[in-house]
Amino acid sequence: MQITKEQIEQAHERVKPFIHQTPVLTSTFINSIAGAELFFKCENFQKIGAFKIRGGMNAVLTLPKDQLANGIATHSSGNHAQAIAYAAREVGTKAFIVMPNTSPKVKVDAVKGYGADIIFCEPNQQARENALQEIVDRTGAAFIHPYNDERVITGQATCAKELLEKIPALDAIFAPVGGGGLLSGTALSAHYFSTATKVYAGEPEGAADAVLSFKSGQIETAPYINTIADGLLTKLGDKTFPIIQQYVTDIFTVSEDEIISSLQLVYERMKIIVEPSCVVPLAALLKNQEQFAGKRVGIILSGGNVDLKKFAEWFG
Amino acid sequence: MQITKEQIEQAHERVKPFIHQTPVLTSTFINSIAGAELFFKCENFQKIGAFKIRGGMNAVLTLPKDQLANGIATHSSGNHAQAIAYAAREVGTKAFIVMPNTSPKVKVDAVKGYGADIIFCEPNQQARENALQEIVDRTGAAFIHPYNDERVITGQATCAKELLEKIPALDAIFAPVGGGGLLSGTALSAHYFSTATKVYAGEPEGAADAVLSFKSGQIETAPYINTIADGLLTKLGDKTFPIIQQYVTDIFTVSEDEIISSLQLVYERMKIIVEPSCVVPLAALLKNQEQFAGKRVGIILSGGNVDLKKFAEWFG
Repeated sequence: MQITKEQIEQAHERVKPFIHQTPVLTSTFINSIAGAELFFKCENFQKIGAFKIRGGMNAVLTLPKDQLANGIATHSSGNHAQAIAYAAREVGTKAFIVMPNTSPKVKVDAVKGYGADIIFCEPNQQARENALQEIVDRTGAAFIHPYNDERVITGQATCAKELLEKIPALDAIFAPVGGGGLLSGTALSAHYFSTATKVYAGEPEGAADAVLSFKSGQIETAPYINTIADGLLTKLGDKTFPIIQQYVTDIFTVSEDEIISSLQLVYERMKIIVEPSCVVPLAALLKNQEQFAGKRVGIILSGGNVDLKKFAEWFG
Repeated sequence: MQITKEQIEQAHERVKPFIHQTPVLTSTFINSIAGAELFFKCENFQKIGAFKIRGGMNAVLTLPKDQLANGIATHSSGNHAQAIAYAAREVGTKAFIVMPNTSPKVKVDAVKGYGADIIFCEPNQQARENALQEIVDRTGAAFIHPYNDERVITGQATCAKELLEKIPALDAIFAPVGGGGLLSGTALSAHYFSTATKVYAGEPEGAADAVLSFKSGQIETAPYINTIADGLLTKLGDKTFPIIQQYVTDIFTVSEDEIISSLQLVYERMKIIVEPSCVVPLAALLKNQEQFAGKRVGIILSGGNVDLKKFAEWFG
C-alpha cells in the first residue's frame, strides 16, 4: 500500500518536536560554476548529524506503547544506529544496536553516548542477522530496519517536504542513494507537494547498484564496492525500489575523484563539514550540468558525521 | 581621538550592503561541556570567509573618490589581502597586494581571483615595507594597514555590534587577538552597545605578545612564535593597544593541544569549518570555565579559510 501525502504530513508533525528544522544554504561561487541556482538542505546540522533521525524518530513514535516498553533494535554501524539510540532515549526506552566488531571506535562511542546497548557481531550479513534475531527473541524489542521500512521512508520524506516549504517551485531535487530510504522519501514528497519538481539521485561508481536496478527493473547488486561514500554501500530494498522506479527521473553515477572535488568545494566555499556520501548528488549535478542550466535545484546534504582522521586520506 | 559610537554605527550602515549578516549558532553539546551558554558569531560564513572584509570594506568606502581612483594597497598574506582585493573590486578600483614569495598558492590564487595585482617580496619586514612604499610612490594608491588603522578597527567593531543586536545581554564576549583589530573593535562595541558585557581575548602561548603587553603596559614582542593559529602571529599596534588596555577585561593563553581540541570540537559537533586562529577564544573559555559558569558568552568565530592539506597535520 502506497505511502500517502497525509502520512507524510502526520509524520512531519510527529517528529517536529524532536528534530531541527535545518537551514537551507546557498553559495554564489558554487552557483557560478554549476550554472544553476542551488539550494542546499543542510541535514549535517540535524540532530545526530544526519537526516536518519527523521526516519528513526518517526518509526519509534508510531510504535504502540506496549511494544515500545520492550525496547527497539536495529543493525547499523552508521547514522541509523545513532538515530535509533537517540530516538529510544527521547521516548524513554532501551535501544539494542547490532554493530560489526570492526566498527570505528568513534561510531561505537557515539551510539554508547546516547545510552544504547551495543551487541558486537562478526562483520558479515549472516552474523548480523543472527545477532539481531537473538536480541529480538530474547527481549521482544521492535526491529526498525535502516531503510526498508515504510515508517522510516515516511520519516525521511519530511526532509524534502521541509525544503519545498522553504524554497518552493524547485525544478529538481538531488539526493544520494544507498538503500534508498532518503531517495524514495524525497521522491514521494516531490510528487505530493511539488508535482513539477523532478527528483534525481547521485550514486558512486564504486557502489552502483541503484543505477543498475533502475535500468534493469529489478534489484541488482553493485558490480564492485570501492568508494569513500561509506553511507551508500547498501543495496535497494523491496520497499524503496518500487517508489524509486515510479517517481525518480534519473540516477547518475560519479567517480571517486568527482566526489573528492565536490567535498573540497563544499568545505572550502560553504565552510561546512559534510560526509563524502553527502556530496555525491552535487558531484552528479556538476557532471551533468548542461541538463540543469539556469534551473533551481535543491540538493540534500544528508549528513556531517566524519572521522577527522580521514581528512588526510581525502585532501592529503 | 577615540572612535565614537556614531562612527561604528555609520560604519555598519556603510558596509552592510557589501557583507553578510552572519548567523549566530549554538551547540547543546558544547554548552554542556562548557557549563555556560555560548553564542558563536560565525564570521567563517562572511564574504571572503572572514571578518576582515568588515574593516577592509569600511576603509575603502571612506576614501575620497579622487584617492580611490589611484587604487588601494596593502601587505598581507592572509585574510586582509582578500578583503582589500574584494573591496577594490566592489568599488571598481585596483588593489595592489604585497605578499611574501613564500605565500601558499591557495592564498595567492584567492587574491588573484578577486582581480588584484600581487607584488611578491622576500619574506621579511624590511622587504615588505620597501615593496609597499615603492607601489604607493609609483601609483599613488592608498595604503590600508591590516589592523593598525581607525577605519579598519571601526569596521571590525560592527561584528560584535551585530552579535549584540541579535543576542542582547551577553555577560561576556571572547575574541582572538593578533594585531588587535578585531579585539579592539569588539571591546569598543561592547562598551558602547552593551556596557555590562565584558570582553576577553584568547591568544596562543606560541604567539603571546598581547598578554605580555596587557600586563606590562607597553607593546611587547612574543618570546617565541610556534602556533598553528597563523592569523594571530602579528603584534599589537599603537592604535589597537590603547583600546585593548582600556576596554578588555583579560587575555588568556592556550596551548597548541588546547587549540586542536577546540578545533576538533567545532568540526565534529558544529559541523562547520573554521580556522585554527578562530577557536583560540573557545579554547580560552574552556580552560577558564569556572569563571564563566552559567554565563551567557558570545564567541567570535573569526574565519574559515583553511588549507585542507593541513587537516592531516591537525587530526592525523
